[in-house]
Amino acid sequence: LKVEVVGIEGIPEIVEGDNLGRSIAEAAEASGVAVSDDDILVITQKVVSKAEGRIVDVPPGDGEAKRRVIEDEAARILRRRDSLTIAETRHGFVCASAGVDSSNIPTGKLSLLPADPDRSARRLRRAFSRAAGSFPPVVISDTFGRAWRIGQINVAIGIAGMDPVVDLRGTPDDFGAALRVTTIAVADEVAAAAELVMGKTLRVPAAVVRGVDYVRGRGRATTLVRRAQDDLFR
Amino acid sequence: LKVEVVGIEGIPEIVEGDNLGRSIAEAAEASGVAVSDDDILVITQKVVSKAEGRIVDVPPGDGEAKRRVIEDEAARILRRRDSLTIAETRHGFVCASAGVDSSNIPTGKLSLLPADPDRSARRLRRAFSRAAGSFPPVVISDTFGRAWRIGQINVAIGIAGMDPVVDLRGTPDDFGAALRVTTIAVADEVAAAAELVMGKTLRVPAAVVRGVDYVRGRGRATTLVRRAQDDLFR
Repeated sequence: LKVEVVGIEGIPEIVEGDNLGRSIAEAAEASGVAVSDDDILVITQKVVSKAEGRIVDVPPGDGEAKRRVIEDEAARILRRRDSLTIAETRHGFVCASAGVDSSNIPTGKLSLLPADPDRSARRLRRAFSRAAGSFPPVVISDTFGRAWRIGQINVAIGIAGMDPVVDLRGTPDDFGAALRVTTIAVADEVAAAAELVMGKTLRVPAAVVRGVDYVRGRGRATTLVRRAQDDLFR
Repeated sequence: LKVEVVGIEGIPEIVEGDNLGRSIAEAAEASGVAVSDDDILVITQKVVSKAEGRIVDVPPGDGEAKRRVIEDEAARILRRRDSLTIAETRHGFVCASAGVDSSNIPTGKLSLLPADPDRSARRLRRAFSRAAGSFPPVVISDTFGRAWRIGQINVAIGIAGMDPVVDLRGTPDDFGAALRVTTIAVADEVAAAAELVMGKTLRVPAAVVRGVDYVRGRGRATTLVRRAQDDLFR
Protein backbone atom coordinates (compact mmCIF):
# COMPACT_ATOMS: atom_id res chain seq x y z
CA LEU A 1 0.00 0.00 0.00
CA LYS A 2 2.25 2.74 -1.24
CA VAL A 3 1.93 5.80 -3.45
CA GLU A 4 5.03 7.60 -4.70
CA VAL A 5 5.30 11.12 -6.06
CA VAL A 6 8.50 11.87 -7.97
CA GLY A 7 9.32 15.32 -9.34
CA ILE A 8 10.82 15.51 -12.82
CA GLU A 9 13.84 17.78 -12.70
CA GLY A 10 15.72 19.34 -15.57
CA ILE A 11 12.82 20.53 -17.72
CA PRO A 12 14.14 23.62 -19.55
CA GLU A 13 12.41 27.01 -19.49
CA ILE A 14 9.45 26.59 -21.86
CA VAL A 15 8.41 29.13 -24.51
CA GLU A 16 5.59 29.22 -27.04
CA GLY A 17 5.73 26.42 -29.57
CA ASP A 18 7.97 24.13 -27.51
CA ASN A 19 7.07 20.44 -27.56
CA LEU A 20 6.42 20.25 -23.82
CA GLY A 21 5.48 16.56 -23.82
CA ARG A 22 8.80 15.69 -25.41
CA SER A 23 10.74 17.99 -23.06
CA ILE A 24 9.18 16.23 -20.08
CA ALA A 25 9.96 12.79 -21.54
CA GLU A 26 13.59 13.79 -22.15
CA ALA A 27 13.98 15.28 -18.67
CA ALA A 28 12.46 12.17 -17.07
CA GLU A 29 14.82 9.93 -19.02
CA ALA A 30 17.87 12.09 -18.26
CA SER A 31 17.10 12.12 -14.54
CA GLY A 32 16.36 8.40 -14.37
CA VAL A 33 12.64 8.71 -13.62
CA ALA A 34 10.89 5.76 -15.28
CA VAL A 35 7.27 6.45 -16.22
CA SER A 36 4.97 3.48 -16.83
CA ASP A 37 1.52 3.28 -18.43
CA ASP A 38 0.04 2.88 -14.95
CA ASP A 39 1.62 6.01 -13.48
CA ILE A 40 -0.04 9.41 -13.72
CA LEU A 41 1.90 12.32 -15.20
CA VAL A 42 1.03 15.64 -13.55
CA ILE A 43 1.98 18.87 -15.33
CA THR A 44 1.40 22.38 -13.95
CA GLN A 45 -0.79 24.82 -15.81
CA LYS A 46 1.82 27.55 -16.04
CA VAL A 47 4.18 25.58 -18.24
CA VAL A 48 1.30 24.36 -20.43
CA SER A 49 0.12 27.95 -20.91
CA LYS A 50 3.66 29.01 -21.82
CA ALA A 51 4.01 26.26 -24.43
CA GLU A 52 0.63 27.18 -25.89
CA GLY A 53 1.37 30.90 -25.97
CA ARG A 54 -1.44 31.66 -23.55
CA ILE A 55 0.52 34.70 -22.32
CA VAL A 56 -0.54 38.30 -22.83
CA ASP A 57 1.32 41.58 -22.43
CA VAL A 58 0.12 44.20 -20.01
CA PRO A 59 1.97 47.34 -18.90
CA PRO A 60 3.53 46.58 -15.47
CA GLY A 61 1.42 48.00 -12.69
CA ASP A 62 -1.53 48.76 -14.96
CA GLY A 63 -4.32 47.40 -12.77
CA GLU A 64 -6.99 48.51 -15.21
CA ALA A 65 -5.40 46.51 -18.06
CA LYS A 66 -5.17 43.45 -15.81
CA ARG A 67 -8.82 43.90 -14.85
CA ARG A 68 -9.80 43.87 -18.52
CA VAL A 69 -7.85 40.65 -19.12
CA ILE A 70 -9.59 39.01 -16.15
CA GLU A 71 -13.00 40.09 -17.44
CA ASP A 72 -12.17 38.74 -20.89
CA GLU A 73 -11.29 35.36 -19.33
CA ALA A 74 -14.32 35.26 -17.03
CA ALA A 75 -17.68 33.88 -18.02
CA ARG A 76 -19.11 35.37 -14.85
CA ILE A 77 -17.78 37.38 -11.92
CA LEU A 78 -19.01 35.75 -8.69
CA ARG A 79 -17.52 38.02 -6.02
CA ARG A 80 -15.24 41.03 -5.73
CA ARG A 81 -13.52 42.38 -2.66
CA ASP A 82 -10.67 44.89 -2.86
CA SER A 83 -8.17 43.45 -5.36
CA LEU A 84 -9.70 39.96 -5.17
CA THR A 85 -11.98 38.78 -7.97
CA ILE A 86 -13.55 35.32 -7.80
CA ALA A 87 -14.75 34.36 -11.24
CA GLU A 88 -16.16 31.46 -13.16
CA THR A 89 -14.03 30.74 -16.21
CA ARG A 90 -15.40 29.72 -19.57
CA HIS A 91 -14.52 26.13 -18.64
CA GLY A 92 -16.69 26.46 -15.51
CA PHE A 93 -13.84 26.54 -12.98
CA VAL A 94 -14.31 28.92 -10.07
CA CYS A 95 -11.04 30.58 -9.08
CA ALA A 96 -9.34 33.88 -8.34
CA SER A 97 -8.86 36.26 -11.28
CA ALA A 98 -10.41 33.72 -13.71
CA GLY A 99 -7.03 31.98 -13.73
CA VAL A 100 -5.11 35.07 -14.87
CA ASP A 101 -1.77 35.02 -13.10
CA SER A 102 1.38 37.12 -12.99
CA SER A 103 3.65 34.79 -11.01
CA ASN A 104 6.61 33.01 -12.57
CA ILE A 105 6.45 34.81 -15.86
CA PRO A 106 8.39 37.91 -16.89
CA THR A 107 7.26 41.33 -15.67
CA GLY A 108 4.68 42.87 -17.99
CA LYS A 109 3.10 39.54 -18.88
CA LEU A 110 0.13 37.58 -17.58
CA SER A 111 -0.60 33.90 -18.07
CA LEU A 112 -4.08 32.67 -18.98
CA LEU A 113 -5.49 29.19 -18.48
CA PRO A 114 -5.24 26.94 -21.54
CA ALA A 115 -8.25 27.44 -23.81
CA ASP A 116 -9.22 23.76 -23.44
CA PRO A 117 -7.12 22.09 -20.72
CA ASP A 118 -8.62 18.64 -21.36
CA ARG A 119 -7.53 18.92 -25.00
CA SER A 120 -4.11 20.15 -23.82
CA ALA A 121 -3.84 17.06 -21.60
CA ARG A 122 -4.69 14.74 -24.50
CA ARG A 123 -2.10 16.43 -26.73
CA LEU A 124 0.57 16.33 -24.03
CA ARG A 125 -0.19 12.67 -23.42
CA ARG A 126 0.39 11.84 -27.08
CA ALA A 127 3.55 13.96 -27.31
CA PHE A 128 4.96 12.43 -24.14
CA SER A 129 4.13 8.95 -25.39
CA ARG A 130 5.81 9.45 -28.76
CA ALA A 131 9.03 10.47 -27.00
CA ALA A 132 8.93 8.18 -23.97
CA GLY A 133 7.22 5.05 -25.26
CA SER A 134 4.86 4.76 -22.28
CA PHE A 135 1.33 6.17 -22.33
CA PRO A 136 0.34 7.28 -18.81
CA PRO A 137 -2.74 9.38 -18.03
CA VAL A 138 -2.03 13.11 -17.78
CA VAL A 139 -3.37 15.60 -15.22
CA ILE A 140 -2.84 19.35 -15.71
CA SER A 141 -2.85 20.98 -12.28
CA ASP A 142 -3.38 24.50 -11.06
CA THR A 143 -3.27 26.14 -7.66
CA PHE A 144 -6.75 27.26 -6.58
CA GLY A 145 -8.14 28.84 -3.45
CA ARG A 146 -11.23 27.37 -1.83
CA ALA A 147 -14.40 28.57 -0.20
CA TRP A 148 -14.31 28.37 3.62
CA ARG A 149 -10.67 27.35 4.01
CA ILE A 150 -7.43 29.32 4.12
CA GLY A 151 -4.67 28.50 1.70
CA GLN A 152 -4.53 27.08 -1.77
CA ILE A 153 -4.20 23.53 -3.02
CA ASN A 154 -3.55 22.04 -6.42
CA VAL A 155 -6.52 20.70 -8.36
CA ALA A 156 -6.96 19.11 -11.78
CA ILE A 157 -7.98 21.46 -14.60
CA GLY A 158 -7.19 19.07 -17.48
CA ILE A 159 -7.27 15.27 -17.69
CA ALA A 160 -6.49 12.63 -20.30
CA GLY A 161 -6.66 8.86 -19.99
CA MET A 162 -8.39 8.49 -16.62
CA ASP A 163 -11.67 9.13 -14.91
CA PRO A 164 -11.51 12.17 -12.61
CA VAL A 165 -13.41 10.40 -9.83
CA VAL A 166 -13.54 7.03 -8.16
CA ASP A 167 -17.19 6.36 -7.55
CA LEU A 168 -17.79 4.37 -4.37
CA ARG A 169 -21.54 4.95 -4.36
CA GLY A 170 -23.45 1.76 -3.81
CA THR A 171 -20.51 -0.31 -2.58
CA PRO A 172 -21.05 -1.83 0.88
CA ASP A 173 -19.15 -0.30 3.78
CA ASP A 174 -17.14 -2.20 6.38
CA PHE A 175 -20.30 -3.23 8.20
CA GLY A 176 -21.98 -4.45 5.04
CA ALA A 177 -25.26 -2.75 5.75
CA ALA A 178 -24.91 0.88 4.73
CA LEU A 179 -24.03 1.77 1.17
CA ARG A 180 -21.31 4.33 0.78
CA VAL A 181 -22.26 7.65 -0.79
CA THR A 182 -18.74 8.82 -1.50
CA THR A 183 -17.39 9.95 -4.85
CA ILE A 184 -13.68 10.65 -4.45
CA ALA A 185 -12.17 13.28 -6.74
CA VAL A 186 -9.04 11.22 -7.28
CA ALA A 187 -7.64 13.52 -10.00
CA ASP A 188 -7.76 16.43 -7.55
CA GLU A 189 -6.05 14.34 -4.85
CA VAL A 190 -3.37 13.35 -7.36
CA ALA A 191 -2.86 17.03 -8.25
CA ALA A 192 -2.60 17.90 -4.54
CA ALA A 193 -0.11 15.09 -3.91
CA ALA A 194 2.01 16.24 -6.86
CA GLU A 195 2.20 19.75 -5.42
CA LEU A 196 4.00 18.30 -2.41
CA VAL A 197 7.07 17.73 -4.62
CA MET A 198 6.54 20.48 -7.18
CA GLY A 199 6.12 23.19 -4.58
CA LYS A 200 9.59 22.58 -3.22
CA THR A 201 11.16 24.42 -6.11
CA LEU A 202 9.66 26.41 -8.92
CA ARG A 203 11.82 24.52 -11.40
CA VAL A 204 9.82 21.28 -11.23
CA PRO A 205 6.69 21.75 -13.37
CA ALA A 206 5.95 18.01 -13.70
CA ALA A 207 5.77 14.96 -11.47
CA VAL A 208 4.95 11.29 -11.71
CA VAL A 209 2.44 9.78 -9.27
CA ARG A 210 2.75 6.01 -8.89
CA GLY A 211 0.56 3.41 -7.24
CA VAL A 212 -2.81 5.17 -7.38
CA ASP A 213 -6.00 3.13 -7.87
CA TYR A 214 -7.73 5.02 -10.63
CA VAL A 215 -10.08 4.07 -13.44
CA ARG A 216 -8.76 4.33 -16.99
CA GLY A 217 -11.11 6.19 -19.23
CA ARG A 218 -11.84 9.20 -21.32
CA GLY A 219 -12.57 11.44 -18.36
CA ARG A 220 -12.47 15.20 -18.55
CA ALA A 221 -11.64 17.70 -15.83
CA THR A 222 -14.68 19.69 -16.84
CA THR A 223 -16.84 16.88 -15.42
CA LEU A 224 -15.38 17.87 -12.03
CA VAL A 225 -17.21 21.17 -12.37
CA ARG A 226 -20.50 21.14 -10.51
CA ARG A 227 -23.22 22.50 -12.75
CA ALA A 228 -24.24 26.00 -11.71
CA GLN A 229 -27.84 24.90 -11.19
CA ASP A 230 -26.70 22.14 -8.79
CA ASP A 231 -24.31 24.42 -6.92
CA LEU A 232 -25.47 25.87 -3.62
CA PHE A 233 -22.55 28.31 -3.43
CA ARG A 234 -22.33 29.99 -6.81
CA LEU B 1 12.49 15.01 -5.07
CA LYS B 2 10.21 12.31 -3.81
CA VAL B 3 7.21 12.02 -1.51
CA GLU B 4 6.02 8.62 -0.32
CA VAL B 5 2.66 7.69 1.15
CA VAL B 6 2.55 4.35 2.96
CA GLY B 7 -0.64 2.90 4.40
CA ILE B 8 -0.44 1.28 7.83
CA GLU B 9 -2.17 -2.09 7.67
CA GLY B 10 -3.26 -4.31 10.52
CA ILE B 11 -4.84 -1.72 12.81
CA PRO B 12 -7.58 -3.62 14.69
CA GLU B 13 -11.22 -2.50 14.82
CA ILE B 14 -11.22 0.41 17.30
CA VAL B 15 -13.76 0.91 20.07
CA GLU B 16 -14.25 3.60 22.71
CA GLY B 17 -11.37 3.85 25.13
CA ASP B 18 -8.81 2.12 22.92
CA ASN B 19 -5.33 3.63 22.86
CA LEU B 20 -5.41 4.43 19.15
CA GLY B 21 -1.95 6.00 19.07
CA ARG B 22 -0.45 2.82 20.50
CA SER B 23 -2.48 0.59 18.15
CA ILE B 24 -1.13 2.53 15.17
CA ALA B 25 2.45 2.31 16.48
CA GLU B 26 2.10 -1.45 16.99
CA ALA B 27 0.57 -1.99 13.54
CA ALA B 28 3.30 0.09 11.90
CA GLU B 29 6.00 -1.90 13.68
CA ALA B 30 4.35 -5.25 12.88
CA SER B 31 4.05 -4.38 9.18
CA GLY B 32 7.57 -2.99 8.92
CA VAL B 33 6.60 0.65 8.34
CA ALA B 34 9.27 2.82 9.94
CA VAL B 35 8.00 6.23 11.07
CA SER B 36 10.56 8.99 11.65
CA ASP B 37 10.23 12.35 13.38
CA ASP B 38 10.23 14.02 9.95
CA ASP B 39 7.36 11.96 8.53
CA ILE B 40 3.74 13.00 8.95
CA LEU B 41 1.27 10.52 10.45
CA VAL B 42 -2.21 10.87 8.94
CA ILE B 43 -5.17 9.31 10.79
CA THR B 44 -8.76 9.31 9.55
CA GLN B 45 -11.48 11.00 11.58
CA LYS B 46 -13.71 7.94 11.81
CA VAL B 47 -11.27 5.89 13.84
CA VAL B 48 -10.49 8.87 16.10
CA SER B 49 -14.18 9.39 16.77
CA LYS B 50 -14.58 5.70 17.57
CA ALA B 51 -11.70 5.75 20.07
CA GLU B 52 -13.14 8.87 21.69
CA GLY B 53 -16.66 7.49 21.87
CA ARG B 54 -18.00 10.20 19.59
CA ILE B 55 -20.69 7.79 18.41
CA VAL B 56 -24.40 8.21 19.08
CA ASP B 57 -27.34 5.80 18.73
CA VAL B 58 -30.23 6.63 16.46
CA PRO B 59 -33.04 4.30 15.40
CA PRO B 60 -32.18 2.99 11.91
CA GLY B 61 -34.06 4.91 9.25
CA ASP B 62 -35.20 7.63 11.65
CA GLY B 63 -34.45 10.68 9.51
CA GLU B 64 -35.88 13.05 12.10
CA ALA B 65 -33.52 11.73 14.80
CA LYS B 66 -30.56 12.10 12.44
CA ARG B 67 -31.66 15.64 11.63
CA ARG B 68 -31.66 16.51 15.33
CA VAL B 69 -28.13 15.11 15.74
CA ILE B 70 -26.94 17.21 12.78
CA GLU B 71 -28.53 20.32 14.23
CA ASP B 72 -26.91 19.63 17.60
CA GLU B 73 -23.51 19.39 15.89
CA ALA B 74 -24.02 22.46 13.71
CA ALA B 75 -23.19 25.99 14.78
CA ARG B 76 -25.04 27.23 11.71
CA ILE B 77 -26.90 25.66 8.81
CA LEU B 78 -25.66 27.26 5.58
CA ARG B 79 -27.75 25.51 2.93
CA ARG B 80 -30.32 22.75 2.67
CA ARG B 81 -31.49 20.91 -0.43
CA ASP B 82 -33.45 17.66 -0.26
CA SER B 83 -31.52 15.38 2.10
CA LEU B 84 -28.35 17.50 1.85
CA THR B 85 -27.46 19.84 4.69
CA ILE B 86 -24.33 21.99 4.45
CA ALA B 87 -23.45 23.24 7.90
CA GLU B 88 -20.75 25.07 9.77
CA THR B 89 -19.55 22.98 12.71
CA ARG B 90 -18.65 24.41 16.08
CA HIS B 91 -15.00 24.18 14.99
CA GLY B 92 -15.84 26.36 11.97
CA PHE B 93 -15.53 23.63 9.34
CA VAL B 94 -18.07 23.78 6.52
CA CYS B 95 -19.18 20.31 5.47
CA ALA B 96 -22.17 18.08 4.78
CA SER B 97 -24.31 17.11 7.79
CA ALA B 98 -21.98 18.99 10.18
CA GLY B 99 -19.67 15.97 10.01
CA VAL B 100 -22.36 13.51 11.19
CA ASP B 101 -21.80 10.28 9.28
CA SER B 102 -23.32 6.82 9.13
CA SER B 103 -20.72 5.06 7.00
CA ASN B 104 -18.40 2.39 8.37
CA ILE B 105 -20.07 2.15 11.74
CA PRO B 106 -22.74 -0.32 12.80
CA THR B 107 -26.35 0.23 11.74
CA GLY B 108 -28.21 2.42 14.22
CA LYS B 109 -25.18 4.54 15.04
CA LEU B 110 -23.80 7.83 13.77
CA SER B 111 -20.29 9.17 14.16
CA LEU B 112 -19.64 12.77 15.16
CA LEU B 113 -16.47 14.78 14.59
CA PRO B 114 -14.08 14.82 17.56
CA ALA B 115 -15.00 17.62 19.96
CA ASP B 116 -11.56 19.23 19.50
CA PRO B 117 -9.67 17.54 16.66
CA ASP B 118 -6.51 19.58 17.23
CA ARG B 119 -6.45 18.35 20.82
CA SER B 120 -7.12 14.81 19.57
CA ALA B 121 -4.14 15.16 17.23
CA ARG B 122 -1.87 16.30 20.08
CA ARG B 123 -3.01 13.39 22.26
CA LEU B 124 -2.54 10.86 19.46
CA ARG B 125 0.89 12.26 18.75
CA ARG B 126 1.96 11.73 22.36
CA ALA B 127 0.41 8.24 22.53
CA PHE B 128 2.04 7.20 19.25
CA SER B 129 5.37 8.59 20.42
CA ARG B 130 5.31 6.74 23.74
CA ALA B 131 4.77 3.45 21.90
CA ALA B 132 6.90 4.04 18.79
CA GLY B 133 9.73 6.23 20.05
CA SER B 134 9.50 8.70 17.16
CA PHE B 135 7.51 11.93 17.37
CA PRO B 136 6.09 12.82 13.94
CA PRO B 137 3.48 15.51 13.36
CA VAL B 138 -0.08 14.17 13.19
CA VAL B 139 -2.87 15.15 10.80
CA ILE B 140 -6.45 13.97 11.37
CA SER B 141 -8.18 13.80 8.00
CA ASP B 142 -11.79 13.77 6.93
CA THR B 143 -13.53 13.47 3.57
CA PHE B 144 -15.27 16.73 2.69
CA GLY B 145 -17.19 17.95 -0.34
CA ARG B 146 -16.35 21.28 -1.87
CA ALA B 147 -18.14 24.25 -3.35
CA TRP B 148 -18.07 24.34 -7.17
CA ARG B 149 -16.47 20.95 -7.73
CA ILE B 150 -17.86 17.41 -7.91
CA GLY B 151 -16.46 14.76 -5.62
CA GLN B 152 -14.89 14.75 -2.20
CA ILE B 153 -11.29 15.00 -1.11
CA ASN B 154 -9.58 14.51 2.22
CA VAL B 155 -8.70 17.59 4.23
CA ALA B 156 -7.08 18.20 7.61
CA ILE B 157 -9.44 18.70 10.55
CA GLY B 158 -6.85 18.23 13.30
CA ILE B 159 -3.12 18.98 13.40
CA ALA B 160 -0.27 18.57 15.88
CA GLY B 161 3.39 19.39 15.44
CA MET B 162 3.32 21.26 12.13
CA ASP B 163 2.05 24.45 10.57
CA PRO B 164 -0.99 23.84 8.39
CA VAL B 165 0.30 26.11 5.62
CA VAL B 166 3.55 26.88 3.86
CA ASP B 167 3.56 30.61 3.37
CA LEU B 168 5.30 31.64 0.16
CA ARG B 169 4.08 35.22 0.32
CA GLY B 170 6.87 37.67 -0.24
CA THR B 171 9.38 35.18 -1.66
CA PRO B 172 10.62 36.09 -5.13
CA ASP B 173 9.34 34.06 -8.04
CA ASP B 174 11.46 32.49 -10.79
CA PHE B 175 11.87 35.84 -12.52
CA GLY B 176 12.92 37.58 -9.32
CA ALA B 177 10.66 40.56 -9.84
CA ALA B 178 7.19 39.56 -8.72
CA LEU B 179 6.59 38.43 -5.17
CA ARG B 180 4.53 35.30 -4.82
CA VAL B 181 1.17 35.59 -3.12
CA THR B 182 0.64 31.90 -2.52
CA THR B 183 -0.12 30.27 0.80
CA ILE B 184 -0.19 26.50 0.27
CA ALA B 185 -2.44 24.48 2.60
CA VAL B 186 0.14 21.75 2.94
CA ALA B 187 -1.76 19.88 5.67
CA ASP B 188 -4.74 19.58 3.33
CA GLU B 189 -2.51 18.35 0.50
CA VAL B 190 -0.97 15.79 2.87
CA ALA B 191 -4.46 14.61 3.86
CA ALA B 192 -5.43 14.35 0.17
CA ALA B 193 -2.26 12.40 -0.65
CA ALA B 194 -2.91 10.01 2.25
CA GLU B 195 -6.39 9.26 0.93
CA LEU B 196 -4.77 7.84 -2.20
CA VAL B 197 -3.60 4.85 -0.13
CA MET B 198 -6.29 4.83 2.54
CA GLY B 199 -9.15 4.85 0.05
CA LYS B 200 -8.02 1.58 -1.46
CA THR B 201 -9.47 -0.36 1.43
CA LEU B 202 -11.53 0.69 4.38
CA ARG B 203 -9.20 -1.21 6.69
CA VAL B 204 -6.38 1.33 6.48
CA PRO B 205 -7.28 4.25 8.75
CA ALA B 206 -3.71 5.61 8.99
CA ALA B 207 -0.83 6.39 6.66
CA VAL B 208 2.67 7.83 6.82
CA VAL B 209 3.61 10.64 4.42
CA ARG B 210 7.37 11.00 3.90
CA GLY B 211 9.47 13.66 2.26
CA VAL B 212 7.17 16.66 2.58
CA ASP B 213 8.64 20.12 3.12
CA TYR B 214 6.61 21.42 6.02
CA VAL B 215 7.25 23.80 8.88
CA ARG B 216 7.37 22.35 12.37
CA GLY B 217 5.22 24.26 14.77
CA ARG B 218 2.22 24.40 16.99
CA GLY B 219 -0.23 24.82 14.12
CA ARG B 220 -3.90 24.07 14.45
CA ALA B 221 -6.32 22.91 11.78
CA THR B 222 -8.78 25.52 12.99
CA THR B 223 -6.44 28.18 11.56
CA LEU B 224 -7.29 26.67 8.14
CA VAL B 225 -10.84 27.90 8.68
CA ARG B 226 -11.45 31.21 6.94
CA ARG B 227 -13.16 33.58 9.34
CA ALA B 228 -16.82 33.99 8.48
CA GLN B 229 -16.40 37.75 8.05
CA ASP B 230 -13.58 37.18 5.51
CA ASP B 231 -15.47 34.50 3.61
CA LEU B 232 -17.25 35.49 0.44
CA PHE B 233 -19.16 32.19 0.21
CA ARG B 234 -20.64 31.59 3.65
